[in-house]
Amino acid sequence: MHDTADRAPASGYMGSGNRLVAAANGVDFAYRDCGTGERPLILLQHFRGNLDNWDPSLVDALAVGRQVVTFDNAGVGGSTGTTPSTVRQMALDAIAFLDAMDLRRVDLLGFSLGSFVAQEIALVRPDAVRRMVLAASAPQGAAGMHGWASDVIDAVGAPEPDPDGYLRVFYASSPESRTAGQASLGRMFARTSDRDQATTWRTRTAQYDAVCAWGIPDHALLERLGGIQAPVFVANGDSDPMILPRYSYLLAGLIPHARMAIYPDAAHGFLFQHHARFAADVAAFLDDASWT
Amino acid sequence: MHDTADRAPASGYMGSGNRLVAAANGVDFAYRDCGTGERPLILLQHFRGNLDNWDPSLVDALAVGRQVVTFDNAGVGGSTGTTPSTVRQMALDAIAFLDAMDLRRVDLLGFSLGSFVAQEIALVRPDAVRRMVLAASAPQGAAGMHGWASDVIDAVGAPEPDPDGYLRVFYASSPESRTAGQASLGRMFARTSDRDQATTWRTRTAQYDAVCAWGIPDHALLERLGGIQAPVFVANGDSDPMILPRYSYLLAGLIPHARMAIYPDAAHGFLFQHHARFAADVAAFLDDASWT
Repeated sequence: MHDTADRAPASGYMGSGNRLVAAANGVDFAYRDCGTGERPLILLQHFRGNLDNWDPSLVDALAVGRQVVTFDNAGVGGSTGTTPSTVRQMALDAIAFLDAMDLRRVDLLGFSLGSFVAQEIALVRPDAVRRMVLAASAPQGAAGMHGWASDVIDAVGAPEPDPDGYLRVFYASSPESRTAGQASLGRMFARTSDRDQATTWRTRTAQYDAVCAWGIPDHALLERLGGIQAPVFVANGDSDPMILPRYSYLLAGLIPHARMAIYPDAAHGFLFQHHARFAADVAAFLDDASWT
Repeated sequence: MHDTADRAPASGYMGSGNRLVAAANGVDFAYRDCGTGERPLILLQHFRGNLDNWDPSLVDALAVGRQVVTFDNAGVGGSTGTTPSTVRQMALDAIAFLDAMDLRRVDLLGFSLGSFVAQEIALVRPDAVRRMVLAASAPQGAAGMHGWASDVIDAVGAPEPDPDGYLRVFYASSPESRTAGQASLGRMFARTSDRDQATTWRTRTAQYDAVCAWGIPDHALLERLGGIQAPVFVANGDSDPMILPRYSYLLAGLIPHARMAIYPDAAHGFLFQHHARFAADVAAFLDDASWT
């Protein structure tokens, strides 16, 4: 056993420092940056998540030959400002971050709530989005997802974050999936210094308001997806109890240029469980020269 | 080589005779019947197809432990009456056939135009449908499918049926898929006696009118699918140029209790090309006791 002080500096996402950038909307955004490449990939985080809740193995796999940027949206974790209670405002805040970073055209990877924000960015400022990955996502207005199932919000919405509840929602019930979940959590908590600030109860309630509003059934709103012209890769776990795979079907059916993958024996955290395969699928999608 | 007269009588679909049943709507419906079982499966045929256009290998695989009934809808092939130019009327005619056969509750397998009719039956008379398979299908009103692509209707819509055009639409461009297509056509034409009557130009134009009307873009109509309470299995080939796989995604996303499979290196005729695998998937779906 070595003492922490004896270790070589961590590389990749584990070793990427917390940075701040001041945006025109008055928010100082916390972010991390790793990898290099000509087409930056910006990650948009899930409900209650901060910079530490991206599995370093996934970020490192995505960052092969590519710049990957994670950030806390307004009011979340180490960013200043107030967490808004609408996806639209979250998208406008994210656009302010992109502007502050001078990122004019990017690839987006939105995960869960972050995928709602990604859709909104693609609709509000289409020129900013080259291609987009929607992980564990759903269209605004789809029937049957209003507020999530009660056991799901109970598991991940309690005042104090509950690792067991997280595992029940993010991983399938098989031993293999639960073991993968424990391993992913271990990687997230392996970073002992320079961690991000925890997200607050204020962030939790505002984000859940936004999630509930997104899920108000409104069939007419599904038609918005026809306005997304960027190529999109839709992905989910086959057993996600939070955002059912049927909403991935719906996205892939309504977005004009979409492809889709459903990952086996996996739930909301399929992208952490299957990080190598998912990162390879994302790279194949982002680098596919046959997609215009 | 044996002369035809020396052969043993064909068994299975090849050996099933053409029958007629008189329905209350005044139509004498032509049908064939094979297999036995407690839950009859009724097949609904594609654009311009008659009883001979069901691949016997598929029907025989479906008929293991199951009664399978194929029929010509009103005005088609050996049935009397007039082919209507709306999917709704085709569904009402099909219901008249079910009533004439005293089939009060059935499983449906609709293929292409037949899958539109199947959806309509499930909406007009939900009690008649236990479970439903939608092969190479699309929802009424989905954007982007109005009248099919011009090369598709040119290939299958000419006054004289064109085997090469059929192969281009029903099979993918790979040698494997085209070879499977030739084999399937060979099985369809192996029946030399008691063949069905060819479909007419009148049937072609009326059916194409119905297809075009089904494809008039109308986002609001997509919501109809929420009314289908029967479990549904949605399936297509990954390269179908006639009804794109994205419409299968849309069906599976909008029908409340749906599962989906996309078959590799296959087009509109995926169910003939992959007849053994598809029949196994259909049987697993129809016999799955965990689906209520």
